[in-house]
Amino acid sequence: MISAIVLAAGQATRFGECKQLVRLGGKTLLEHALAGVRGAKIDDVVVVLGANAEEILERIAFRETVVINPDFAGGMSTSIQAGLRAAKGDAALIVLGDQPFVASATLDALIDEYRRTKARVIIPTYRGLRGNPVLVDRSLFAEMMNIRGDVGCRAIFGDHADSIVNVPVEDRGVVVDIDTAEDLVGTSKAL
Amino acid sequence: MISAIVLAAGQATRFGECKQLVRLGGKTLLEHALAGVRGAKIDDVVVVLGANAEEILERIAFRETVVINPDFAGGMSTSIQAGLRAAKGDAALIVLGDQPFVASATLDALIDEYRRTKARVIIPTYRGLRGNPVLVDRSLFAEMMNIRGDVGCRAIFGDHADSIVNVPVEDRGVVVDIDTAEDLVGTSKAL
Repeated sequence: MISAIVLAAGQATRFGECKQLVRLGGKTLLEHALAGVRGAKIDDVVVVLGANAEEILERIAFRETVVINPDFAGGMSTSIQAGLRAAKGDAALIVLGDQPFVASATLDALIDEYRRTKARVIIPTYRGLRGNPVLVDRSLFAEMMNIRGDVGCRAIFGDHADSIVNVPVEDRGVVVDIDTAEDLVGTSKAL
Repeated sequence: MISAIVLAAGQATRFGECKQLVRLGGKTLLEHALAGVRGAKIDDVVVVLGANAEEILERIAFRETVVINPDFAGGMSTSIQAGLRAAKGDAALIVLGDQPFVASATLDALIDEYRRTKARVIIPTYRGLRGNPVLVDRSLFAEMMNIRGDVGCRAIFGDHADSIVNVPVEDRGVVVDIDTAEDLVGTSKAL
């Protein structure tokens, strides 16, 4: 079974409002990310909330498991860990809630590669740039529990360079995330 | 590390309103259960919500990890499992959110007994009656993942009779739970 952990706990200090709920077209940023996950061959989805959790729960009807991370201010690593603990799968896609444009087909391509190669880490690349989401095998979860601060799973990849498979994709969405209101404007125009 | 899993996901069909938020004195039922946990020597608390999660999150300020179980209608076993997955501890107390009167000292007595005996299951008894919460060692979590339907961890105790330690306590709260509005009236008068 493959899990997806959708990270949407951040307080987005560079953004200035509740980033997860910013609208882009007819949906919020987080709903865009969720739509990609819901369309893929994923059996278990854990959404991690933190900052503004009550507001987000009022506005979005989740049918996924939701975990509210009380330690979100301790950085992204704490939210990844809260999600990993709740995940049921043999592997987990670490999905960024502020990446609205990743296609379901891209997620499926990562999962297919995992099933074929059993590689412990699968990373999508767009024109040579490494992107997200990253798929991580359960055998690395224990190590990911030791990451501290505002860093993601890349913190442990240096120790597992031989276990990484890059999957080139034609989906620019894997390298687009929304950090500022300006990103949002630029992205809307570009896509 | 000891975890507590506070079960508050039920839809309380026998109760007729959002049971978790019914007031008893100055606090809601769920806050009473939480107060017992917060006062005990417990390092990791996971509150499992399901029915009426949004309403409960609006009304209660949790500082604990909250998991929203989308499968709560599948019965108590699904909520125990959602909580166990998120728990960090070597053992977990399975705390019923509708047991408002369990004293922190009672929880501590169960934890002390666990530390002393390393028994895999610790159950409080009041005048010979088995009560709740039950403390379960992590070595049984995998088995608890296979329980189905609206049953609790007792479902697996038959297979582990030799691993159970009963702890007699003078806390009637371990055998009092609130299932109906009548229970609430009776209990308020009695305590």
